[in-house]
Amino acid sequence: MNPYRAPLADLAFCLEEFADLPGLMGLPDFADLSGDVTQAILEEGSRFASGVLAPLDAVGDREGSRLENGVVKTPEGFAAAYGKFVAGGWNALPFDAAGGQGLPWSLAIALQEMWGSANLAFSLCPLLTQGAIEAIAIHGSPAQRHTYLPKLISGEWTGTMNLTEPQAGSDVGALRCRAVPDGERYLITGQKIFITYGDHDMAENIVHLVLARTPGAPPGSRGISLFIVPKRLVNASGTLAQANDLRVAALEHKLGIHASPTCVMAYGDNGGAVGYLVGEENRGLEYMFTMMNIARLSVGLQGVSIAERAYQMALDYARSRVQGRPIGANDPQATIIGHPDVRRMLMTLRAQSEATRALAHFAAGALDRARHLENAQAREQSQRLVDLLIPVVKAWSTDLGCEAASLAIQIHGGAGFIEQTGVAQLYRDIRIAPIYEGTNGIQAGDLVGRKLMRDRGAAVRDFIAGLRACDGDLAAAKGQDLSGIRAALAEGAIALSRSTDWLIETYGSEPALALAGATPYLRLFGTVAGGWLMAMAALAATRRLADGPGDMAGGKAFLTAKLATARFYADNILVQAEGLAAQIVRGSAPVLAPAAEDF
Amino acid sequence: MNPYRAPLADLAFCLEEFADLPGLMGLPDFADLSGDVTQAILEEGSRFASGVLAPLDAVGDREGSRLENGVVKTPEGFAAAYGKFVAGGWNALPFDAAGGQGLPWSLAIALQEMWGSANLAFSLCPLLTQGAIEAIAIHGSPAQRHTYLPKLISGEWTGTMNLTEPQAGSDVGALRCRAVPDGERYLITGQKIFITYGDHDMAENIVHLVLARTPGAPPGSRGISLFIVPKRLVNASGTLAQANDLRVAALEHKLGIHASPTCVMAYGDNGGAVGYLVGEENRGLEYMFTMMNIARLSVGLQGVSIAERAYQMALDYARSRVQGRPIGANDPQATIIGHPDVRRMLMTLRAQSEATRALAHFAAGALDRARHLENAQAREQSQRLVDLLIPVVKAWSTDLGCEAASLAIQIHGGAGFIEQTGVAQLYRDIRIAPIYEGTNGIQAGDLVGRKLMRDRGAAVRDFIAGLRACDGDLAAAKGQDLSGIRAALAEGAIALSRSTDWLIETYGSEPALALAGATPYLRLFGTVAGGWLMAMAALAATRRLADGPGDMAGGKAFLTAKLATARFYADNILVQAEGLAAQIVRGSAPVLAPAAEDF
Repeated sequence: MNPYRAPLADLAFCLEEFADLPGLMGLPDFADLSGDVTQAILEEGSRFASGVLAPLDAVGDREGSRLENGVVKTPEGFAAAYGKFVAGGWNALPFDAAGGQGLPWSLAIALQEMWGSANLAFSLCPLLTQGAIEAIAIHGSPAQRHTYLPKLISGEWTGTMNLTEPQAGSDVGALRCRAVPDGERYLITGQKIFITYGDHDMAENIVHLVLARTPGAPPGSRGISLFIVPKRLVNASGTLAQANDLRVAALEHKLGIHASPTCVMAYGDNGGAVGYLVGEENRGLEYMFTMMNIARLSVGLQGVSIAERAYQMALDYARSRVQGRPIGANDPQATIIGHPDVRRMLMTLRAQSEATRALAHFAAGALDRARHLENAQAREQSQRLVDLLIPVVKAWSTDLGCEAASLAIQIHGGAGFIEQTGVAQLYRDIRIAPIYEGTNGIQAGDLVGRKLMRDRGAAVRDFIAGLRACDGDLAAAKGQDLSGIRAALAEGAIALSRSTDWLIETYGSEPALALAGATPYLRLFGTVAGGWLMAMAALAATRRLADGPGDMAGGKAFLTAKLATARFYADNILVQAEGLAAQIVRGSAPVLAPAAEDF
Repeated sequence: MNPYRAPLADLAFCLEEFADLPGLMGLPDFADLSGDVTQAILEEGSRFASGVLAPLDAVGDREGSRLENGVVKTPEGFAAAYGKFVAGGWNALPFDAAGGQGLPWSLAIALQEMWGSANLAFSLCPLLTQGAIEAIAIHGSPAQRHTYLPKLISGEWTGTMNLTEPQAGSDVGALRCRAVPDGERYLITGQKIFITYGDHDMAENIVHLVLARTPGAPPGSRGISLFIVPKRLVNASGTLAQANDLRVAALEHKLGIHASPTCVMAYGDNGGAVGYLVGEENRGLEYMFTMMNIARLSVGLQGVSIAERAYQMALDYARSRVQGRPIGANDPQATIIGHPDVRRMLMTLRAQSEATRALAHFAAGALDRARHLENAQAREQSQRLVDLLIPVVKAWSTDLGCEAASLAIQIHGGAGFIEQTGVAQLYRDIRIAPIYEGTNGIQAGDLVGRKLMRDRGAAVRDFIAGLRACDGDLAAAKGQDLSGIRAALAEGAIALSRSTDWLIETYGSEPALALAGATPYLRLFGTVAGGWLMAMAALAATRRLADGPGDMAGGKAFLTAKLATARFYADNILVQAEGLAAQIVRGSAPVLAPAAEDF
């Protein structure tokens, strides 16, 4: 079993520097929160992740969830661990309503990162519940909120999202599940696929949120409604009644996240599953979108989780494995961490996990401000930033998470290819993250086609202006040479700026050509945004070192390491910006040159 | 089952343009070879790969090889397929000696690519046999050659390479297996790990080549000797005698290539396995190195194989999957190949497979010339080029093979994460290729520390001069606009040139600093070399289009597609060169900045 250590020092640093948790604590909604409470929650979460979830990670992979007599059985230990998760109040942490603790999302994602690092397959269950809670809290009727939210928020019941059908994946509008009115309720029939935790034995009820079409609904995405379809119906008193007309038709055999049951769900084999309309008919897709920002942030975070875990496994191995005398080393017991090439891989892992974490916290802080700032205009401005960042967090972080897992295998050499070592599981598990919750190609299209074009680049230009604003601080920094970071950031800003201009100019006349550059643009955006935040981290570290680190977590060693990572990022990752800009500006036309039939 | 179609047109093109097969056919050693024969071999090989090997690929993954009562049982159908492989003469194709067909390696790798695409796990068995043949043919005694070569070359017996021990992986010099003289033979004791096809049920005997130490041998890599240790001893008459004192102690449970048994081998449990010294004592490592060029070329080729297969699977899916109306498309049945982002991924896959194939054929042609040119000095010059290219072929191609498999999963969306689809198997199978036969980090160190430094860059500068020499042709090309390719290639040459200068300058005083840049340098070298060959391909396509394609495979459509891929490569892959150069020149110092204990 590979140990997991939550990166508490970096989490505290990111919460303070990028999510601005101290600022959030000044808001009325978070008046009860203090630095001590935050710290205690993080430490307790760390113990839960390391002590309860991480030991089940390999077991879950090996055993997998199984379909037995129509019922899903999760791996040994999962149900008990979930019970502890609920009892510990972890599920309720970020929710405002009915029994929720109303803590900031910034703090919640610090914990979600830990869950994902410790046991990605387990963490998907609360992730899906979170989506159901958001949907019902925002769009449900008072009665629906009363019936479902307390149990979902506590985690006694779990939730699912039922969007996908065989012919309707990225194109949700193509779905065919039907919902026929039957008095005040609806009867749902049809098949859904890829339903995460569609059934399991960890909770007494499962609240399915199902997209379906009512009779006569408009075609496409405008004719989709959202329904609550509980596994077991709920009596008026809140007790559980009979089973609903739904079942698991099959489980998928997947590359990774074996413990997370991916279900084919059959609704209405016996006349129709009872469903309750959420909000109004035909507005289902809109309702799904309202919770998508947080869901995509959470999935992006999975990239951070796996990059961090990959770094830890690779570091432990590199520190202990004796193999080949590193150049200049005299000790015959010198370990492979002394090889320059291994060092490069470790630094890459560190840079990937720290930069993606920084961006996730920056986005989460903005999300909290979009919900809790007192001034409406300021809230709206924060929301605009969140909207811009979410596709980047989702796609950039999950791409880097996959790359990180691969690098960690490489550091392990032959042992990395052997399943017992455990690092191959990371590689298999994380590969889904660039696909679900909107493929990374969908995210890139969203970034260019919606987020960039809806204000013709105003939000992006604000963002670039913001990152350019730290140039003076980088030039003026005392005690640390930040000139390399400054140069790389300036180059990155130019690359991002000229790509942005080109896309805006191109989209109007040739949208397909602009969209052909969407994926490298998203990568460029993430690369430069990460470079900016790493530069801000270097400035903060410089300042804290000058002031004396005091009793901050990690102390001086943490700050020195942060500066080293920031410099590495600038000269090894941020320097790729110009090449990415070229792929957009020069490289998009060759993408479209051959006709489809020429392939 | 996913179909496989050998890329016959591109193989013929690469053989002609990059391996210079027509030139090879003019040499006395290949006097019997003709274009018709070549073409017939490729077509027959294509049928074998598609008809016999590909159908077993998924079966092999699902069943895996199993250890039953101390004996390895390969998946259903493998033994029969191997029998057909031997009967078809495929194993004997490139070998000069004893029953070999003496065909050029250039042609052999075209077939090896097919075997790897169709069934990577199967293809490893002949790959290991090839290594044993090379070792015995070059360094074995006449008696050893007489006893072992005919059976190994025909494939009736297979071979293995026993280098690795738990403490001796990349650092072969740390091995501890012992070989004690016993009359004219030796008794071998010790354990070896990661022995590919160390046992199986596809052939009547297995010839293990084992590295071990004789008593009193010098420590480290200078005290290693090479032994032939057959599974069953061989009588003077050539018939099989009793079993040798060796056994399979365990099979590894791996991420991929499940059908290929990766064995822990125990030698000498009962007093010592009989071994026969190859050549002289203490020269074992040197002997291993003589066959390493071809072995590394073959492993590099696995990257080409998987990139090609990934492209084919992704293309088939993209052509058939209806999902989301592509921008500008009116047909509701339009498939996802119309989405610009999917198109970008497909073009990337095509560029990766074509460029890595081009480089492999260029290296294989040089290898053939190094062995068969009549002029000794010309042979030596070809060998120098081979030595330079081999680490690049091995590492660059396998890295791209992994990236290609990942991209192919992405194009499949959720279906790509489901094992039945088959594309996830490519992703799992190919992940070993950057590790075995010398990790890609070892290759990068070899490129910088040996191949670059041994002549202080002379070979690299010759290479750069060669690629710059096509600038005039690109400028003068008629009928096709190759200006984008020309510009990107010129930029790439500058990036490679300045990185080379920096490495040479740095290595003398700070070798660790230079080695910290080795991996991006290898990537840069591959990127620019691939860009040059794609530029040469564009020139050849331009010329052939002007002359009329005649009856060449693929015809005009192939040539037009080649031009499109070359342009895509230039503006999307080659443009990354400057960023890679920055990672070397600016990025190496930050790699080494933190001390090992600061991690």
